[in-house]
Amino acid sequence: MPKIKFLPHNKEVTVDDGEILIRAAMEAGVHVNASCGGEGLCGKCRVIIESGSVEGGITERLSSEDQEKGYRLACQSRVTQDLVVRIPIESEIDAKVLNMQSTPRRTARIQEMDLDELKEKELFTPPVEKKYIELPPPTAQDNLADATRLVSHLKLNHDEHRLVVDLPVIRKLPDVLRQEDFRLTATLARPVQAGRKTRVINVQPGDTADRNYAIAIDVGTTTIYGQLVDLISGKVLAQYGDFNGQISYGEDVISRIVYAEKPEGLEKLHEVVVETINRVIKECTKRTGVEADEISTITLAGNTTMTQLLLKVNPRYIRRSPYVPASTLYAPINAASLGLALGDHVTALVYPAVSSYVGGDIVAGVMGSGMYRTDELTLFMDIGTNAEIVVGNKDWLACAACSAGPAFEGGGIKFGMRAAKGAIEDFNINPLTNEPMLITIGNVRPKGICGSGLITMVATMFEMGVIDSQGKFNRDLDTPRIRETDGVVEYVLAWQDETQIDRDVALTEIDIENFIRAKGAMYSGYMTLLSEVGMGIQDIERIILAGGFGSYVDLEKAMIIGLLPEIDPDRVTFVGNGSLMGAKMSSLTNRIRKDVVEVTRKMTNFELSETSSFMDNYVAALFLPHTDLNQFPKLKARLDMRKEMLQ
Amino acid sequence: MPKIKFLPHNKEVTVDDGEILIRAAMEAGVHVNASCGGEGLCGKCRVIIESGSVEGGITERLSSEDQEKGYRLACQSRVTQDLVVRIPIESEIDAKVLNMQSTPRRTARIQEMDLDELKEKELFTPPVEKKYIELPPPTAQDNLADATRLVSHLKLNHDEHRLVVDLPVIRKLPDVLRQEDFRLTATLARPVQAGRKTRVINVQPGDTADRNYAIAIDVGTTTIYGQLVDLISGKVLAQYGDFNGQISYGEDVISRIVYAEKPEGLEKLHEVVVETINRVIKECTKRTGVEADEISTITLAGNTTMTQLLLKVNPRYIRRSPYVPASTLYAPINAASLGLALGDHVTALVYPAVSSYVGGDIVAGVMGSGMYRTDELTLFMDIGTNAEIVVGNKDWLACAACSAGPAFEGGGIKFGMRAAKGAIEDFNINPLTNEPMLITIGNVRPKGICGSGLITMVATMFEMGVIDSQGKFNRDLDTPRIRETDGVVEYVLAWQDETQIDRDVALTEIDIENFIRAKGAMYSGYMTLLSEVGMGIQDIERIILAGGFGSYVDLEKAMIIGLLPEIDPDRVTFVGNGSLMGAKMSSLTNRIRKDVVEVTRKMTNFELSETSSFMDNYVAALFLPHTDLNQFPKLKARLDMRKEMLQ
Repeated sequence: MPKIKFLPHNKEVTVDDGEILIRAAMEAGVHVNASCGGEGLCGKCRVIIESGSVEGGITERLSSEDQEKGYRLACQSRVTQDLVVRIPIESEIDAKVLNMQSTPRRTARIQEMDLDELKEKELFTPPVEKKYIELPPPTAQDNLADATRLVSHLKLNHDEHRLVVDLPVIRKLPDVLRQEDFRLTATLARPVQAGRKTRVINVQPGDTADRNYAIAIDVGTTTIYGQLVDLISGKVLAQYGDFNGQISYGEDVISRIVYAEKPEGLEKLHEVVVETINRVIKECTKRTGVEADEISTITLAGNTTMTQLLLKVNPRYIRRSPYVPASTLYAPINAASLGLALGDHVTALVYPAVSSYVGGDIVAGVMGSGMYRTDELTLFMDIGTNAEIVVGNKDWLACAACSAGPAFEGGGIKFGMRAAKGAIEDFNINPLTNEPMLITIGNVRPKGICGSGLITMVATMFEMGVIDSQGKFNRDLDTPRIRETDGVVEYVLAWQDETQIDRDVALTEIDIENFIRAKGAMYSGYMTLLSEVGMGIQDIERIILAGGFGSYVDLEKAMIIGLLPEIDPDRVTFVGNGSLMGAKMSSLTNRIRKDVVEVTRKMTNFELSETSSFMDNYVAALFLPHTDLNQFPKLKARLDMRKEMLQ
Repeated sequence: MPKIKFLPHNKEVTVDDGEILIRAAMEAGVHVNASCGGEGLCGKCRVIIESGSVEGGITERLSSEDQEKGYRLACQSRVTQDLVVRIPIESEIDAKVLNMQSTPRRTARIQEMDLDELKEKELFTPPVEKKYIELPPPTAQDNLADATRLVSHLKLNHDEHRLVVDLPVIRKLPDVLRQEDFRLTATLARPVQAGRKTRVINVQPGDTADRNYAIAIDVGTTTIYGQLVDLISGKVLAQYGDFNGQISYGEDVISRIVYAEKPEGLEKLHEVVVETINRVIKECTKRTGVEADEISTITLAGNTTMTQLLLKVNPRYIRRSPYVPASTLYAPINAASLGLALGDHVTALVYPAVSSYVGGDIVAGVMGSGMYRTDELTLFMDIGTNAEIVVGNKDWLACAACSAGPAFEGGGIKFGMRAAKGAIEDFNINPLTNEPMLITIGNVRPKGICGSGLITMVATMFEMGVIDSQGKFNRDLDTPRIRETDGVVEYVLAWQDETQIDRDVALTEIDIENFIRAKGAMYSGYMTLLSEVGMGIQDIERIILAGGFGSYVDLEKAMIIGLLPEIDPDRVTFVGNGSLMGAKMSSLTNRIRKDVVEVTRKMTNFELSETSSFMDNYVAALFLPHTDLNQFPKLKARLDMRKEMLQ
């Protein structure tokens, strides 16, 4: 992997081969002006390659003279070897100021399932196993019933006790036994609770023991993700996501609930979500050549409303005070009876919920991330369409839903958008000129701002003094980018001719206000949970981020704005889709299925709106980073240093 | 109840008010000539009323002179008061000989379920209970999920632990709760096995705890009987029987199996038996005003083939050597999923089988009769279309199916018929004149002989010396009734003009031969079971008879012919439809559901055709009563005495 040294900052960074140079600069925390998102249009990201060479980087924006001097456009240059790159800056003072800028970009370490660790701890115990068996054919002296013959053999030769044979298996058993001369493969479903029976859920002629698969599904409000898991190797063989078909009936859970209350509404929503899941399953099997009959189990996780709609349980009271779900626990259920396109032998396990707004997706995240087994006081945050937080460890767990609003997904932000092509995902600002450095998803001209971009933007502007701790722009700055439009102060991120949308793209004070409310809700959420159990922010030892958002968020920036508490970034991990991870994990280890009921019971739900300390905590959190700056000592030190330097 | 003394025998009998006098005579073991079945046609049953008076009894067959002397036709006289009745006989010798005749008619004591005993032993524990509950409505401070609220309340206030709520209950729970202001009735299904969970299977608004019912079904090859049981009082509120709709597809199990092997045959047979069961359930609910929703559980018992057809399990291998059923045990199954017209909350329990030809009907009889809990060595016999025997007690059980043939149901007998109107059910013979005394079901002219009649007939003829121990007629007797027709010797029971069928009704030597084979198969069956466990006939302490047949059979006669071993008739009980009784009992006490699996496992099945001693035992039993008369000491003594007297 090539190493790059940036001058005059003297900052080094190692990047993937082929990385775009401007992204490498961002990674190193080095500012380069750039307002076209990386498309090569604005021509501002000029850098000098002092040692080594890049691929590309030459456009008509560079005179041939400049090219000869080693100038390249950073956004058009690909890094393939070690480089020394100089950023042309205005003065020596600049360099100092630039050097004060925020630390290199740090995203959370991705926490992946460690299959070897699972195996080592003897936790790789799939809930469904296959056994190949050769039975002695019956004779006049030994004419046991077919099912008894099977069960007796499993008992004597495979140490399988307390077996029960499902009726559909009994129905096919006589013919399956005689198809390959009493050689067959039995599929055994392990009991979740000790002392209960192992079920024989399928029989297949001959030896099919090496083909045993599971499906894991995250039933998201917007998107449904599925994985096909090989229960022999423990590996994910295919993953596929598709929009939840319910979207046509409402974007968010509330509008889905409203629709479900209409005549036949519940049936319709149930039907379309099952259709989507079936499509996801079909795509996964198609990609891997696995037959539906070879899938032995399915686990699904979703928020409380998604779970009730899937199970055809009317979610009517979820949206009405006092917000009561029909149930939190659901017994395992025959998958085909739900309409899932799986064999009659497949039992569906649906993750339990804690409350109306802390659902099975969060429980799945807590289980799948291993939070429920850790000693360390952990903060788990799942930020998606809704935001949920869990604090605790293996001894106790407290959770809450945050009415954070959709700011982290671009909602309530003038130019907010989902993390899609054209969304500004990275940002820096030149503290002297106040010119921006924008990088967009896909390196195209910007059309909006996504959640992680917003965090970086607000954090950087705050640290650079462009906005104050209340989120108001510093009107004293000498830049045309800060202006008032229709009575609202805003900062122009990209001028009309640099965007995709025929308009200036800007960040407004109202946006920042909404954003501060969202981050304030999160912060005060977990602060409240901690104080309710007599602890404080400083006790947090570990953070787990879930939700698509978590993979992009710059941890240092999130700590600057007060979304995350100040903590060693190494102690922050990202689990991706926590719901899907939990669903997958419960296919691989029966231990999770055993533990989940107790864990769910242990998860104390707090209705923040009913918790008296929440409002105080919330009001205190409506600042960058917080009213009480002492909660952010590292940031305080930096701000103090900066103040000193600028004096 | 009126008392009657018969002279010159000096025998007394007490009968129900309104009983027909000739039946009273039969009951007392007193012979009266009668060959028209009790219709008053033959005019032979003349008796003299010496004290008291009867209703009726006067027909044109009696001259006015005879009437004045007190003569009446016994078959036309109803007993309403105490009587002294003289039987006109030919001589003093007659009287003696007649007196030697067999003991008074003794049928088995009916063994009924003793509900009080069940309650006393704390065995009245229906598997499904209802609880009326008043819940506190949710508030902002207490917004548990509806199902959690229900479960917590049951735990705290009703000491109900380890509950699981079924999905259909969760689906209706939110609305049911709010229908009567959080007052509702929950239906709890108890686990069969200790340590498993109690399921909440239904919820109803308001208080319906006093309406809790069960259905018990005997799935017979010919007839399906059902009972509706009140689970509060333990009483049977309705009983109904209907022909099994499968009859159109074959009369016996073998022809049903053959049909089930045809394309769609299994589905068809499954469908029609379910239709019949639904008809039986509907009739039971109609008669009692019970709603389908108020039925909480159903138990079904049937032979192995009937069980497999009901559960849609192809019985193909039951009729093929080595006669292997698909399974013996079936887990409880949702009743609606079988097509039964019951609520979605109802679980069907199907009695387990032992083997292809000892089915759930027999296991139900063993459970329902309490045989499996007794210390006494018991012989259980179920004689119907097929015959099955079980010997043992609470410590061990051995069982077998007897290929007894259909003789006991009138099959293979020239004039054999089912126990229906016109069937000769009782018989005696005048040892001097060899004239018969016939009583038919319904007191109409005879048209055939039913099983219990046949036993009495053969036993009486044997004891009176009309047939010998090989079942051959004594050709030396001076009577036109014994004759040879088409090379077969027979005894004319009723002349053409006394019958309903325009022919003489007779009993042939071939009939007797078939009959002896049938009784021989039964006797050698249980003799073989006993000898296989190192015991003998003399060890039998108790006999339980099941099957419609058992209620009518004259026990002393059955001992004379060697169908039953000689035992005190007080030790013989009749349980009626054992299958139905077992099904009902398992609705009333969960204990039976718990015990049945172990009992079934304990029931050692013998394939008599594969058991070497069976053939020897069978050949030895092809005599009246047996080759070894010492096995019947009481009969031996009577025969010896008779021989002496006649010398």
